[in-house]
Amino acid sequence: MERVYRTHYVSQCTKELAGKTIILNGWVQKRRDLGGLIFVDLRDRSGLVQVVFNPDISPEAVAVAEQVRSEYVLAVEGTVVERAPENVNPKLKTGEIEVYGKAIHVFNPAKTPPFMISDREEIDESIRLKYRYLDLRRPKMLETLRVRHKAMQVVRRFLDKHGFMELETPMLTKSTPEGARDYLVPSRVHEGEFYALPQSPQLFKQLFMVAGMERYFQFARCFRDEDLRADRQPEFTQIDIEASFLPAETFQELMEQMMVEVFKETIGIEVPTPFPRLTYQEAMERYGSDKPDLRFGMEIKDLSSALENTSFKVFANTIQHGGKVKAVMAEGCADWSRKEIDNWNKAAQKLGAKGLAWIAFKEEGVKGSVAKFLSEKEVEAIREITGAKTGDLLFFVADQPDLAAQVLGQLRLQLGEKLGLIDENAYRFAWITDFPLLEYSEEDGRYYAMHHPFTMPVEEDIPLLDREPGKVRAKAYDMVLNGYEIGGGSQRIYRREIQEKMFRTLGISPDEAKEKFGFLLEAFEYGAPPHGGIAFGFDRIVMLLAKRNNLRECIAFPKTANATCLLTDAPSPVEKEQLDELHIEIKSRARV
Amino acid sequence: MERVYRTHYVSQCTKELAGKTIILNGWVQKRRDLGGLIFVDLRDRSGLVQVVFNPDISPEAVAVAEQVRSEYVLAVEGTVVERAPENVNPKLKTGEIEVYGKAIHVFNPAKTPPFMISDREEIDESIRLKYRYLDLRRPKMLETLRVRHKAMQVVRRFLDKHGFMELETPMLTKSTPEGARDYLVPSRVHEGEFYALPQSPQLFKQLFMVAGMERYFQFARCFRDEDLRADRQPEFTQIDIEASFLPAETFQELMEQMMVEVFKETIGIEVPTPFPRLTYQEAMERYGSDKPDLRFGMEIKDLSSALENTSFKVFANTIQHGGKVKAVMAEGCADWSRKEIDNWNKAAQKLGAKGLAWIAFKEEGVKGSVAKFLSEKEVEAIREITGAKTGDLLFFVADQPDLAAQVLGQLRLQLGEKLGLIDENAYRFAWITDFPLLEYSEEDGRYYAMHHPFTMPVEEDIPLLDREPGKVRAKAYDMVLNGYEIGGGSQRIYRREIQEKMFRTLGISPDEAKEKFGFLLEAFEYGAPPHGGIAFGFDRIVMLLAKRNNLRECIAFPKTANATCLLTDAPSPVEKEQLDELHIEIKSRARV
Repeated sequence: MERVYRTHYVSQCTKELAGKTIILNGWVQKRRDLGGLIFVDLRDRSGLVQVVFNPDISPEAVAVAEQVRSEYVLAVEGTVVERAPENVNPKLKTGEIEVYGKAIHVFNPAKTPPFMISDREEIDESIRLKYRYLDLRRPKMLETLRVRHKAMQVVRRFLDKHGFMELETPMLTKSTPEGARDYLVPSRVHEGEFYALPQSPQLFKQLFMVAGMERYFQFARCFRDEDLRADRQPEFTQIDIEASFLPAETFQELMEQMMVEVFKETIGIEVPTPFPRLTYQEAMERYGSDKPDLRFGMEIKDLSSALENTSFKVFANTIQHGGKVKAVMAEGCADWSRKEIDNWNKAAQKLGAKGLAWIAFKEEGVKGSVAKFLSEKEVEAIREITGAKTGDLLFFVADQPDLAAQVLGQLRLQLGEKLGLIDENAYRFAWITDFPLLEYSEEDGRYYAMHHPFTMPVEEDIPLLDREPGKVRAKAYDMVLNGYEIGGGSQRIYRREIQEKMFRTLGISPDEAKEKFGFLLEAFEYGAPPHGGIAFGFDRIVMLLAKRNNLRECIAFPKTANATCLLTDAPSPVEKEQLDELHIEIKSRARV
Repeated sequence: MERVYRTHYVSQCTKELAGKTIILNGWVQKRRDLGGLIFVDLRDRSGLVQVVFNPDISPEAVAVAEQVRSEYVLAVEGTVVERAPENVNPKLKTGEIEVYGKAIHVFNPAKTPPFMISDREEIDESIRLKYRYLDLRRPKMLETLRVRHKAMQVVRRFLDKHGFMELETPMLTKSTPEGARDYLVPSRVHEGEFYALPQSPQLFKQLFMVAGMERYFQFARCFRDEDLRADRQPEFTQIDIEASFLPAETFQELMEQMMVEVFKETIGIEVPTPFPRLTYQEAMERYGSDKPDLRFGMEIKDLSSALENTSFKVFANTIQHGGKVKAVMAEGCADWSRKEIDNWNKAAQKLGAKGLAWIAFKEEGVKGSVAKFLSEKEVEAIREITGAKTGDLLFFVADQPDLAAQVLGQLRLQLGEKLGLIDENAYRFAWITDFPLLEYSEEDGRYYAMHHPFTMPVEEDIPLLDREPGKVRAKAYDMVLNGYEIGGGSQRIYRREIQEKMFRTLGISPDEAKEKFGFLLEAFEYGAPPHGGIAFGFDRIVMLLAKRNNLRECIAFPKTANATCLLTDAPSPVEKEQLDELHIEIKSRARV
């Protein structure tokens, strides 16, 4: 072949090209020999096409084609020919044609891969990660990275259009012991000193606001050296956004529009706006979660008012001691077996409940673990509050309000899935607002900032900072989607006196504040504008867009749950000379 | 003020808004009190506007305005009023109007900043870096970051349009001891093991090609723990690009188009294409540099042929022993003083030359250090080769060819600057091609890859790998601009037998190759396509676009020459507990 590089992508080979001579490049998906002909399915980034080698056309090409195997890299010169109607393959975009091969060039042979390049096979994940370069050839993985690419471009265009500047922040930065555990980087030049990889560009983006950039964004790589749950990665990508002189509502509307464009342009889904807004309290009460899955109803109901005088002592006592009796309804499940119900009971206990009470609304009346204790009036009130009909099953949890809500929130998700109530094609966004500003740690006997100590309190709650810090609400807002928190943001404190009050509440002395956040506090003395922002978990958004099950499917080269890269074997031992230069040594076990 | 957030940016305040009531947000650039009126220059991201507070309009606003100082953050409500013709300020975009202030809200006061927010002042760089958030308020810095943002968007749009996918690669990766020094990151989970921060995504981008992504790009953060020259940064941003199945020439044309769009859309400069192409050898011979500044001529001339039999023994001996006599001409400088010429001689010696010979073409004949040794015929030949005219001055270096070229290459730059030959508004791109594949290290007695061991040799030179490795040319290409290398790329080796030959030439055993690059070599067994790419120094491109003098001006939060962040004080000491968790300790000096 004189020329080896492609004239067309394979997916461009349609009827319109019939009769044309073309050159294709790609990988052999499959070779079959049939009646003296050789059929090669050739794959490139765009799809698949069938190439036929016929000794009547080119015996030389057939001789080469006979040698090729799966995943060989080829150039093929051939003519596009329309298939006879009975040979059309409707499953293939190029199924109306085939290419009659005239010449073939083998760029590279290939060993037999450890798994077929196909979405149909279930492959052990460790094999997939070790051979990630083959795994990424599979259509679903390619498609996921395509979605990722596309979403990135849409976000950037949107933010650029709205005057946000893409600005980079340092990766080698300062360790801040609050928050998650830092990844540290020893310094060669500064003996005994360390950089830290950023957990987020939070402080830098606030500095950009002090610097008058007004609107900033960045796809920021962030690092947290935490014990990895199934669905966490030590490094992850965050869409980091901050704006000055913008009311929170306007900012939120912008972020909604951005999501609308991402979903429309990436996967063709129309997302309605405005997104519903739920306060944290409302979300906890109705869904038992601060990231409710709104693709189905099955809201949690508070039955405490109906049951405060019930003869069932567990309920009555709980209510009397400040607890609540809450319930979720499994519609049409009144006929579930004792065994099945008992499994849900176990699930509830695993989630921290003392137990799960239940009643079934049957034709013959109300049955179940607490049925006999309930008066007719109480049953009527329950019907009223829950809307229960004959055939429904109701699960109760009686406990402290938060715990009852959380347990039922989890059960709601599991029941919703079990009952097929979740529309996998639905995308239900919401904002969760008015988070508590502070969390009390019984262990440390102090309050901690629920987001970070720069989150602005709701103005009318500021006086409460002294008296009842636990009741202060934050000007914080999370964007949630289908049960995931995909973004967390807030308005920031920009006035010195409020910041000082906040530190006092957190028990952080002025000296300590200076040591930890000195440069930010100093910056705030030189004219800080009102500002706020958000950070989206980009890997998570891609996961939802591409309908994948975990974050590892959405990252080209992810780490395992113990932070290893199976492809490169990172982390790995290094030369002693490297450590010497960094003025560190490995602590021998003996001395630990 | 009821509403405090802006209705307009200040630069939108033009005559068209006259009579309108608006709200502005921004920083006080300057306040002046004049005849009972208070003038406040208000600055936001878009520019400046003059606000006038008049007790006849609002004594309350005047009372507040009296208190504000430079860098206070304000909301101002006022009416746009056309200025009388004699008061128009043509230097200001908003100079045809002023705003009559009706109300004022102080978002935040400000301490007196350590320097004026103005481009006019020269400020010590360490002060600028410590107060970077104030430095970034200066118009030139804001403009540089704007150019950076814009260039990023243009590059992304161009590459997206041409089918390149933006894909992210890991930051926590494997240490590869070849190349520059790695930044290491200790692992908490894997005792005694380390990640390395990437020096470039080279291996991963080649894996993307094996994975069939075909066209990849990324704005990649890269890290090198090297002793920092004035113009290096420990972390820098690279536009990393790779493509499969593309001839090098087509790829280079694409990259040219990309630069054309960047320069046009970012700073409005039309760059002509195609870029001139010079081989490495040609560049060295004509400009004494592999990154020639083509904004001016003054090419180096080889006078060896004219001088091989000269009576000047230094020249004749040099030529006889394989050296060269080369020269650059300083046009119209025949009248330079001895002292001046001697300074250039010293400069040449500092650059490694034994000395600088010279002749001046004067009305009265040829004068200078070697004039008396040159025959008339030799002078005639020199005139012929160099094009010297009366009034010109010629500097000679006689030495080994490379050294002679390099010294004259440097002198050429210095002379060009001194003589004002460099057009600061010109952008002269070029491709430098056919680099040597290998460099011989006298010290180690072996060859090293000039780029990296995966660079493809020129096909016809492959047989030389065994016999004369030093003569093998690489399929490598650098993009240069105004004397800077802004991008370096190559076609990569994708055939196993060539890779093995390359390793043999480099004296790397199969075992060693496997240990160091095992996962890439293994990947290449499973069907690697022909591929190649480039990496652009993005910080450098921004520097050239924004006409700044060094990279620190082009990075929002840069490090100093000893890798310190003066703003955050990174790197810094960390808690012993943090090190314990990472299984490392600081090596005490005693034990070193």
